[in-house]
Amino acid sequence: MSAAYSLAQLAARFGLELSGADRTVRGVATLLDAGPEQVSFLANRHYRAQLGATRAAAVVLARADRAQFTGSALVSLNPYADFARIATLFEPPTSAAPGVHPSAVIDPAASVHASASIGPHCSVAARAHVGAGVVLGPGCIVGEDCSIGAGSRLVARVTLVTRVRLGARVLIHPGAVLGADGFGLAHDAGRWLKVPQLGGVVIGDDCEIGANTTIDRGALGDTVLDEDVRLDNQIQIGHNVHVGAHTAVAGCVAIAGSARIGRECLIAGGVGIVGHIEIADRVKITAMTLVSHSIRDAGEYSSGTGIQDSRAWRRNAVRFRQLDDMARRLAALAKDEKK
Amino acid sequence: MSAAYSLAQLAARFGLELSGADRTVRGVATLLDAGPEQVSFLANRHYRAQLGATRAAAVVLARADRAQFTGSALVSLNPYADFARIATLFEPPTSAAPGVHPSAVIDPAASVHASASIGPHCSVAARAHVGAGVVLGPGCIVGEDCSIGAGSRLVARVTLVTRVRLGARVLIHPGAVLGADGFGLAHDAGRWLKVPQLGGVVIGDDCEIGANTTIDRGALGDTVLDEDVRLDNQIQIGHNVHVGAHTAVAGCVAIAGSARIGRECLIAGGVGIVGHIEIADRVKITAMTLVSHSIRDAGEYSSGTGIQDSRAWRRNAVRFRQLDDMARRLAALAKDEKK
Amino acid sequence: MSAAYSLAQLAARFGLELSGADRTVRGVATLLDAGPEQVSFLANRHYRAQLGATRAAAVVLARADRAQFTGSALVSLNPYADFARIATLFEPPTSAAPGVHPSAVIDPAASVHASASIGPHCSVAARAHVGAGVVLGPGCIVGEDCSIGAGSRLVARVTLVTRVRLGARVLIHPGAVLGADGFGLAHDAGRWLKVPQLGGVVIGDDCEIGANTTIDRGALGDTVLDEDVRLDNQIQIGHNVHVGAHTAVAGCVAIAGSARIGRECLIAGGVGIVGHIEIADRVKITAMTLVSHSIRDAGEYSSGTGIQDSRAWRRNAVRFRQLDDMARRLAALAKDEKK
Repeated sequence: MSAAYSLAQLAARFGLELSGADRTVRGVATLLDAGPEQVSFLANRHYRAQLGATRAAAVVLARADRAQFTGSALVSLNPYADFARIATLFEPPTSAAPGVHPSAVIDPAASVHASASIGPHCSVAARAHVGAGVVLGPGCIVGEDCSIGAGSRLVARVTLVTRVRLGARVLIHPGAVLGADGFGLAHDAGRWLKVPQLGGVVIGDDCEIGANTTIDRGALGDTVLDEDVRLDNQIQIGHNVHVGAHTAVAGCVAIAGSARIGRECLIAGGVGIVGHIEIADRVKITAMTLVSHSIRDAGEYSSGTGIQDSRAWRRNAVRFRQLDDMARRLAALAKDEKK
Repeated sequence: MSAAYSLAQLAARFGLELSGADRTVRGVATLLDAGPEQVSFLANRHYRAQLGATRAAAVVLARADRAQFTGSALVSLNPYADFARIATLFEPPTSAAPGVHPSAVIDPAASVHASASIGPHCSVAARAHVGAGVVLGPGCIVGEDCSIGAGSRLVARVTLVTRVRLGARVLIHPGAVLGADGFGLAHDAGRWLKVPQLGGVVIGDDCEIGANTTIDRGALGDTVLDEDVRLDNQIQIGHNVHVGAHTAVAGCVAIAGSARIGRECLIAGGVGIVGHIEIADRVKITAMTLVSHSIRDAGEYSSGTGIQDSRAWRRNAVRFRQLDDMARRLAALAKDEKK
Repeated sequence: MSAAYSLAQLAARFGLELSGADRTVRGVATLLDAGPEQVSFLANRHYRAQLGATRAAAVVLARADRAQFTGSALVSLNPYADFARIATLFEPPTSAAPGVHPSAVIDPAASVHASASIGPHCSVAARAHVGAGVVLGPGCIVGEDCSIGAGSRLVARVTLVTRVRLGARVLIHPGAVLGADGFGLAHDAGRWLKVPQLGGVVIGDDCEIGANTTIDRGALGDTVLDEDVRLDNQIQIGHNVHVGAHTAVAGCVAIAGSARIGRECLIAGGVGIVGHIEIADRVKITAMTLVSHSIRDAGEYSSGTGIQDSRAWRRNAVRFRQLDDMARRLAALAKDEKK
C-alpha cells in the first residue's frame, strides 16, 4: 500500500471538513491500531473512549464528537460511509488481467467479452454470456444459459448452475451456488417424486452474495433478488423467493420457498423464514428468530428466549411446558378472588 | 422447449381424465403465469382463487375442484405428482455426452464406465469406481475407494472425499461434501487429540443431496442414508448418523453424530438434532426446533416461542427467566386459597 | 489395512497395562462391530452394557471398568485418547507424493517447498508461500499473500482468498473458505456502500477447520484463531472474531463480527453469537443457544425452550406472548392476598 494522500486532498475529494493540522496518510486502521500515518474513524459511540489514546493521523467523525478529540479530524455527516470511501483508496488493486487462462474451458457456443478476465480452471458452458469487465477468479463454473452483467466479479469457485442472470457490478464470494434445483418433492405411492425445477435466478445490479451461500432456481418462475441486496455467508434462499431492493441479510439465514421479503429489511444472523409468507418493507428481524407467518407492518420482530446459566434455564424450560396450565390456574384464582 | 403434446396424449400417458376441450401444450407454468399453451396445476387450496383468472391451456386438479373451473382439466388422484410427471416432459435434455473431458484427471487405478460422462476439471482417484451412465459435471472430485452407482449425477463441484459409496440414481448438487472427517476429539493433557475417522458414507438408491450439504464419514462404522432420502441445501450430517428411507430434510438442518432418524420423517428447516438419540418413524419436526432427546412415537414436535414485535417480546423474555419463580408463587397462592 | 500389532506392543508403546491374554490385532471397531482381531474401547458408561457381548480382541478401558469385562483389556487413564492413538496406527497412509501436478497452476511469484504436494487443478497465486510437507488435495485455491505452515493439509477444494496465514499442522476440510470479505456495509443515501475489507486471517498451529466452514478476513485488523482451535462443518466466523486456544466449536455455529471467544470453550451445534461481545475462558454453550450479550464467568449457558408435541407446544407458545401480563396479574393477586 504505497498510496499517499494529504488530509486536505481527502477532505476535498469527499466533501469533508478538515479540522486541525494537515498530514500525509498512507492507510486506514481502527482507533486502537492506527499509527501516525493512518486514518481512523468513530461511527459507534461505544468506541468514543478510544479517541483519547489513538495515535491516528486523523479521525473521521461527526461534528458532535469533534470536541472530544484534540487531534486532526475529518468532520463528516456520515463518518462510516466516508471512512469506507477513504479506505477504498488504499485497497490493493486486483491483479486480474483481461483474457482467458489457458486452463479454462470455454464452450464454443458461449460468449465472453474481450475485456473479461477468466481465471484458471474455470468452465463456461454453452449459451452463457460473460459481460464487459467481468472477473471470474479461479475455479468458477458458469452453466448453460447463464449471463453475467458488466463489471461483476466472481471471486473464486462460484457456481452458476443454469439459467442464472446476474446484473451489473454483482460481487459473489467463493463457494456460493446459484441456480441449483429447488427442493420440490411430491408424495407418490410411498415414495418421493422429484418435481422438475425449470425456472432460473435473477440477481439485480450491485448485489453482493457471501461465501457458501446458496440460491436455488425457481420451480416454474424465477428466484429474484432486486438491486443492491446484500447477503452474507452461508445463507440459504429457496426456490421462488423474492427479496426486495436494499435488503441486507446476515449469515446463516434460511429463507424457504416462495417467501417474499420487502425492501430495506434487515435480517439478522441465523433467522429462519418459512415458505409462502410475505414480509413488509423496512422490517427488522433479530438474531435466530423464526418468522412463522407474514409480517404486515414495518418494525422490529423477535422470537426465542434470553440466555441464562443452564441450571436456571432448565428450571424455567420445564415450566414453559406447563405454561398453558399455569395461565389457566392463574385465571381461576383471579376469578375466585372476585367472588 | 419445443416439445408439444395434446392433452389427450398426456391423459393417456399418465392415466388422467381429460375433462373439456383437447389442446396442444408446449410447457408448464403456475396458474398466474401460464399462457394458452401451458399446463398448470392446483394442489394447494390456498391457490384455488386463482383458477378463475388463469389463462392455462389446462389445469391438473382433483375431482373435487373440477366444478370450480370452466376450462380444460386433467383430473387426477394426485395432482402435484401428476403435474411433476408432465413437467418432466418439458425439461431441457442434459447435454452431457459420454466420455472424459481432456482437462479431467483420472487415476490409472480408477475404473470409469464407458457410458459415463466426466466433465472439465474433474479428478477421479485410485480405486474409485464410476458406474454406467453416471454424469459428473465440472469440477467434481471423487476420492480414493469411492463408488458411484449407475445413473447417478453429480451436478458440479461435488466432493466425495474417501470411502463414499453411492447407490443408483443418486443426485447431488454443487458444493456438497461427502466423506469428510467427522468431528472426533479426545481431551488429552489440556490439548485436543484427533480421533481417526476410519469409516465411510453409504448413500442408498434414489437419494438427493442439496447444494453445500455436508455428510461426514463414520468414525468406525459408516454414516448411512437409506434409499429415497431427500436432503435440501446446507444440511450437516455428523459421523455415524443413520437416516431411514423416504425421510425428507429441509435446508440448514444439523444432525449430530450417531443420531438415528426413522423412515418417512419430515424434518423442517433449521432443526437441530443432538447426537446419540433416536427418532421414530413418521415423526415430523417443525422449523428451528431443537431435538434434545429421543422421540419414541410418531407425531409432530416443536420447540421455541412465537414471533412478536421486539418490544413485547423483550418484556416476555425477561419473564421467562422468572418462570420457575412464578410457578412457585402461583402454587403458593393456590395453596393459601384452599386453606 | 494390513498392519498388525500384539496387545503387548500396544501396551508398551502407549504406556497402558495389558490385563488378560495377549493377541494379535489388525484394526479397530466399536464394541458392537468388533471382530476377534480388532481393538475396541469403552469411554462412555452409556455403552458399558455392550461389554458383555463384544467379540473384540481387547477393549481399552478405565481401571474402574476392568471388573465388568472378562476378555483382554488395555487399562488406561484416558481410554478415549489412548484408543485414538491406537486407531492412528490403522489409518491408511496418505497417497500424496511431493511435487506439483501438471494440471495445477502456480504463479511464478509464488513459493512452494520442494517437499509439498500440490494436487490436480490447484492454483497458487502470486506471493503465496506453501511450506514444507504441505499437502494440497485436488482443487485447492491459494490466493495472493497467503502462507501455509509446515505439515498442513488442505484436503480438497479449500479456498484461501487473500492474506490468510496458516500455522503448522493445520487441517482444513473440503469446501472451507478462509479470507473472503467480511460483511461490512455503510448506509449511504438509501443505498449500501461496501466497506473495504483489508485485513487477513491468522490460524494458529494444530487447528482443524471443517467442511464448508467460512472464516472472513478482518475489516482492518485480522480474524484470529489461536492454536489448537477445532471447528466442525458449516461454521461461520465473521470478520475480526478472535477464538482462544483449545476452544472447540460444533457444526453450524455462527459467530458475528468482532466477537471474542475465550480459551477452552465448548460451543455446541447451531449456537449463534452476536457481534462485539466477549465470552470468558472455559464457557460451555448448549445447542442452538443465542448468546446475545457478553459472558464474564466460566460455566454453562443455554437459551430456548424444550421440545414437546406440537399441540401442547402451541398452547404454551401462545401463553409465552402473555407472559408479562401473567406476571403482572400474579403480582397483583399476591398483593391482594396480603391485604
